Amino acid sequence: MTAPEPLPVTADSLLAVTYNDDGLVPAIVQDDATGEVLMMAWMNAETLRLTFDEGRTVFWSRSRREVWRKGDTSGDIQVVRSAHYDCDGDTLLFRVDQHGAGACHTGARSCFFRSFTEPGATGDS
Amino acid sequence: MTAPEPLPVTADSLLAVTYNDDGLVPAIVQDDATGEVLMMAWMNAETLRLTFDEGRTVFWSRSRREVWRKGDTSGDIQVVRSAHYDCDGDTLLFRVDQHGAGACHTGARSCFFRSFTEPGATGDS
Repeated sequence: MTAPEPLPVTADSLLAVTYNDDGLVPAIVQDDATGEVLMMAWMNAETLRLTFDEGRTVFWSRSRREVWRKGDTSGDIQVVRSAHYDCDGDTLLFRVDQHGAGACHTGARSCFFRSFTEPGATGDS
Repeated sequence: MTAPEPLPVTADSLLAVTYNDDGLVPAIVQDDATGEVLMMAWMNAETLRLTFDEGRTVFWSRSRREVWRKGDTSGDIQVVRSAHYDCDGDTLLFRVDQHGAGACHTGARSCFFRSFTEPGATGDS
């Protein structure tokens, strides 16, 4: 898999990001190779900057109230291939190389392994 | 394009959804054919139910504070092909057939047409 390396970002793009009242912005993570949506988590200005500096996704854990370097525990880091923001600047999209088994703490490749219409869908799929 | 039709959802799945303090949950919308992430918007319990009843995405507009049937003005509705929720139940993912030009009010196909690393990316791409 690709190793992380710093991403050169434009100053204008960073200024275009709008944070909510808690100083956070939602970040969608998509598998760059397959297009599968892997997870959604939150970033603040610091972890967005760390994401670009380190070339891998770094989130803000709302429950633990701390910087969350994705994969530091599991080894399943997400190397950023491209980074985008939406028309309102209030949602981010990262296309990544997902290392290891997957993005989800359940062991599933994607956190979105459950369907509203198919009973009993599991993380095995 | 596919016409919308009601989606049969399991009662358990609806109970698994966790709303934030404003009664909202983020909903990612992905093109079912191409895998492109089109947009992210918010739903409350009512508009989630309407989405399944009508088979097309219905959001809650936070700015207008009203039910927002995507495409009612533009005609560019999103017919739901499959609906998923994540491991925490606090983010939704809809795979859709995007009718018309696209999902974004700018005229772009996806709201995520701007890159952090490529200056001057426009909605034309």
